[in-house]
Amino acid sequence: MLDLNQPHHRLNILTGEKVLVSPHRNNRPWQGKVEDVATDDRPQYDPTCYLCPSNKRADGTENPDYKDTYVFTNDFSAILENTSEGTYNNADLLQATAERGICKVITFSPRHDLTLPEMDVPSILKVVDLWQNEFVELSQKDWIKYIQIFENKGAIMGCSNPHPHGQIWSQSSLPNEILIETARQKEYFEKNGVSLLKAYLDLELCLKERIIIDNTHFVALVPYWATWPFETIIISKRHIQNISLFTAEEKEDLAKTLQELTIRYDNIFSTSFPYSGGMHQSPVNDGEHPEWHWHMHFYPPLLRSASVKKFMVGYEMLGGPQRDITPETAADIIKKQSTIHYKKA
Amino acid sequence: MLDLNQPHHRLNILTGEKVLVSPHRNNRPWQGKVEDVATDDRPQYDPTCYLCPSNKRADGTENPDYKDTYVFTNDFSAILENTSEGTYNNADLLQATAERGICKVITFSPRHDLTLPEMDVPSILKVVDLWQNEFVELSQKDWIKYIQIFENKGAIMGCSNPHPHGQIWSQSSLPNEILIETARQKEYFEKNGVSLLKAYLDLELCLKERIIIDNTHFVALVPYWATWPFETIIISKRHIQNISLFTAEEKEDLAKTLQELTIRYDNIFSTSFPYSGGMHQSPVNDGEHPEWHWHMHFYPPLLRSASVKKFMVGYEMLGGPQRDITPETAADIIKKQSTIHYKKA
Ligand SMILES: O=P(O)(O)O[C@H]1O[C@H](CO)[C@@H](O)[C@H](O)[C@H]1O
Ligand SMILES: O=P(O)(O)O[C@H]1O[C@H](CO)[C@@H](O)[C@H](O)[C@H]1O
Repeated sequence: MLDLNQPHHRLNILTGEKVLVSPHRNNRPWQGKVEDVATDDRPQYDPTCYLCPSNKRADGTENPDYKDTYVFTNDFSAILENTSEGTYNNADLLQATAERGICKVITFSPRHDLTLPEMDVPSILKVVDLWQNEFVELSQKDWIKYIQIFENKGAIMGCSNPHPHGQIWSQSSLPNEILIETARQKEYFEKNGVSLLKAYLDLELCLKERIIIDNTHFVALVPYWATWPFETIIISKRHIQNISLFTAEEKEDLAKTLQELTIRYDNIFSTSFPYSGGMHQSPVNDGEHPEWHWHMHFYPPLLRSASVKKFMVGYEMLGGPQRDITPETAADIIKKQSTIHYKKA
Repeated sequence: MLDLNQPHHRLNILTGEKVLVSPHRNNRPWQGKVEDVATDDRPQYDPTCYLCPSNKRADGTENPDYKDTYVFTNDFSAILENTSEGTYNNADLLQATAERGICKVITFSPRHDLTLPEMDVPSILKVVDLWQNEFVELSQKDWIKYIQIFENKGAIMGCSNPHPHGQIWSQSSLPNEILIETARQKEYFEKNGVSLLKAYLDLELCLKERIIIDNTHFVALVPYWATWPFETIIISKRHIQNISLFTAEEKEDLAKTLQELTIRYDNIFSTSFPYSGGMHQSPVNDGEHPEWHWHMHFYPPLLRSASVKKFMVGYEMLGGPQRDITPETAADIIKKQSTIHYKKA
């Protein structure tokens, strides 16, 4: 018998990694770093913001006077479309390969002062539509093998502009996390004839301990192996490989799920809740991937308050992730939040 | 032919992971989070510090009036010695196992105002001696399988007390990173009859592009696959499995290497350079591990200045690590630093 109130580790079935859970440890006093809490009094339009409609960007381009979303190639892309191929290998010890890619920036709204939890469902749906369109369009380039859609929210998550926006990095090879999740899902699917996340979802829906949102097409929950204090995952009920296959109904449900989840997040500490969040889905132009099951991860750093985060440092970098409250406690805290945003309550 | 000035990815031979290198990207303007620079005017003794000699800790224990190092069991340990065994498995989808362990805190010096780069070699040698003694002593408990020796330096790395100290977490199972590095080293050693890091070190010593320090027993260098901007690795020239096998000469050389490396770090931005650093070495009480080659990783977060760090966020968490300057540029910057600490220059 395992006592979940004592230190234990849990398995992340998507990656094969363990997370160390120390349920008793949240009681220790915190004398360490306290983060600045982001001031939350932005104007609807900021003339100095390079993402606001009609403003000029660093390279001189003028943004259109856009009304909902707007997408453009990142002026400081980490990967570039015109990189030439090449590879280097010295005795298998030094190995490198050129990486081609396209990095895009997506503004979620013309309003400088909004974030997803403050937007209405029709506006969030415009973002989901754009994600789908971009995914379809990018996958038409046959050299693109993976499309990473994500958002860094909050200065603490390295976001350099508070105007609501996300990014899409698409590239010519599969990133680490996708290689690992592909292998794990493939192994399970071939053995069991059902996707790993479908089997997992069915079990969670039956146990009902970690479920936050359960609507017609999506479930948001705290995964059993959650690493970050309030980490969640959104899983589609249908076993679908990627966002190109979403129906209109599914897109609307995803918009609703995103709104409710992020409102609950903001309400935990009555603050604009920082996170990095993004989708994992099948590679493209890479053969069939029947094993893949679309999902979206949310990795939020806050632990105790709007200003005290969890540090993934020494032991975590050298050994493996460690958390101080159980995923079940975190789920209870998220579940008891109101679905009305604290600023509107 | 691969052009290393264009975006590419490199292989981490110890983990099998790729790191994306974007050499052109360091030019982008930074409008994001700026960290507080730690003030550096601490007293030699702080009556409120729970690590200073003769002071009281949270649980009421009084520290001895220690003269060099001091070690005690963490008052807020993440893992505990008396946890009972147990395991849980629901359909292979929810898996958990109890984890037993001992977490210790090691003060490096009675002086509240010092850090490794400001200590003299004989004092650092006392720390190395203690690491060795603790490793030997902990490995005498047959249920302990791995001993993680590390230091979080600086508030930005989650360190909650500036008094110079490190930690040792020892535990009943092997952490993720050790499982991975063990498998990769074993594969190479069985195939080539030489340790992976010995082969790698020989190649680096011949190329001389990324070497920072090369003394009788140790080499400090920026690994070809460095992830953090100024990441380094110290590798022993002898293929030794763990610190219990270090000779007196090796310990002294390690003390010198640590001093020089951390002085160079502090001099880069004339600031107390934050990092998480720690050793990787063979598991204990786990059979023979001839493949293991002792090394020490340093993961420092600063990128452009004392106040602008690299954020490992959205793409990095969901895809894989990405860096903005090449490891060779980073090595050049570290190499050109003085070996006299900026405060003493
Ligand atoms: O043990 P400390 O110094 O209180 O805490 C620090 O180091 C630990 C081990 O890396 C981490 O788990 C904590 O998140 C960090 O704040
Ligand atoms: O692209 P941005 O928003 O300028 O930069 C942010 O997101 C990137 C992708 O996760 C990271 O590589 C950067 O470290 C981070 O600051």
